[in-house]
Amino acid sequence: MSDNHIIGLVSGVGPYAGLDLLGKIVMQTAATSDQEHLPVFSISWPSRIPDRTRFLLGRTAKNPAYPILEQLELLARMGATVAGIPCHTAHAPAIFSVIEEGVRNFSRPLKLLNMVAEVAEHLQTAMPGCRTIGLLATTGTVQTRVYQEALEPRGFRLLVPDPVIQETAVHPAIYDPKHGIKASGATSWARERVLGGAADLQQQGAQAIILGCTELPLVLTEPAINDILLIDSTLILARALIRAAAGRLKD
Amino acid sequence: MSDNHIIGLVSGVGPYAGLDLLGKIVMQTAATSDQEHLPVFSISWPSRIPDRTRFLLGRTAKNPAYPILEQLELLARMGATVAGIPCHTAHAPAIFSVIEEGVRNFSRPLKLLNMVAEVAEHLQTAMPGCRTIGLLATTGTVQTRVYQEALEPRGFRLLVPDPVIQETAVHPAIYDPKHGIKASGATSWARERVLGGAADLQQQGAQAIILGCTELPLVLTEPAINDILLIDSTLILARALIRAAAGRLKD
Repeated sequence: MSDNHIIGLVSGVGPYAGLDLLGKIVMQTAATSDQEHLPVFSISWPSRIPDRTRFLLGRTAKNPAYPILEQLELLARMGATVAGIPCHTAHAPAIFSVIEEGVRNFSRPLKLLNMVAEVAEHLQTAMPGCRTIGLLATTGTVQTRVYQEALEPRGFRLLVPDPVIQETAVHPAIYDPKHGIKASGATSWARERVLGGAADLQQQGAQAIILGCTELPLVLTEPAINDILLIDSTLILARALIRAAAGRLKD
Repeated sequence: MSDNHIIGLVSGVGPYAGLDLLGKIVMQTAATSDQEHLPVFSISWPSRIPDRTRFLLGRTAKNPAYPILEQLELLARMGATVAGIPCHTAHAPAIFSVIEEGVRNFSRPLKLLNMVAEVAEHLQTAMPGCRTIGLLATTGTVQTRVYQEALEPRGFRLLVPDPVIQETAVHPAIYDPKHGIKASGATSWARERVLGGAADLQQQGAQAIILGCTELPLVLTEPAINDILLIDSTLILARALIRAAAGRLKD
């Protein structure tokens, strides 16, 4: 444990995903007392950050990169030295490249991790036998090809759900204003719909499935479904942040 | 939902209790999208805050009030307007009075809620029929009479566990460096010991039991045990913070 590093999180995208990331950082840190846990600063200010999917699908011109950048700058001013954003949709190039460019201009240096790149690196090193990977994500993440562009150059083949299943099951599981995870947390309604997406990816031949939206590990908490490994991107980001902050990992 | 208010949390005392409070703020807020959730800034920097119980029991002269105050001041400088500390032991007068005095001198006003006073208020208004209340807490909280002094003037009788059970079961459930909640989260080892404390309080005649340490709701998540209501102080603090921030409560 070193106080030379402070982890900063933009936790409001969405709030349940932020909680999940915070929890995974605590749980993945080897510690026997409060004092051995890493310093973590978190800003959850979701009203400031417009919906990422609406921007990516062209339904609004407001790039959520700018308020995310403001929150990262506030974290850096407070003292954060490494940062993560638990939102895949914000990792689409149209958003993430603006954020990365802005972070480079901060007066205080901040090492911003790229969750999608961390997942790609994990697949390459920890699961070299899996080459055909399924993706469960928001329609914004699917259509902007965030994961395709990270994985295909490394020789992976990426499968996405049938468009009807994507639109009527996977995306609503995250976004439905009544039963979706962003509104109501881990509902059985959302879980059933995500399982429908996973079954479709398995039928297509997926050897592993990326939970490519940080709301998804909230309803799929098991490590595998029908022998198909689930890749928890939030867990991978949590462990990468602990490493970047020179913390001690469990396991 | 109003952005006029920002909730600030000192989340590292301990980190699991901080997570629990953050989660309860999100879950108790009526919201149908990310954007409807309240702004919450959290600082978890536990290495800076020495153990509260050791100070209260006279084993160190370092008052943890000062680093807690530094973290509250950082939260206020970032923009937080209302704040909470999810640690009962920090609410002992020898610590909390120093914090309150310091907060009054901040250049930016911060409304610091007192969790113990919120619990006393809740008992008085929501459970007027319960007059004999049991307390499960750290030995520091028990011995410094934090809850006794808040409840007895309101006409409540407060019961604490038999000293042997307190020392060999309740306190280790929280603090044991291997199996305790601060080290390892919600273990069954810790739950069994806390249940032993609850059984002793029930035998003494408790009509309700205050979970008077913010680690305890992690192992006792049910609303009641053997028909004895459990008073989740973290939940009460979460709801008080939402109200203070002019947020919309669920229910």
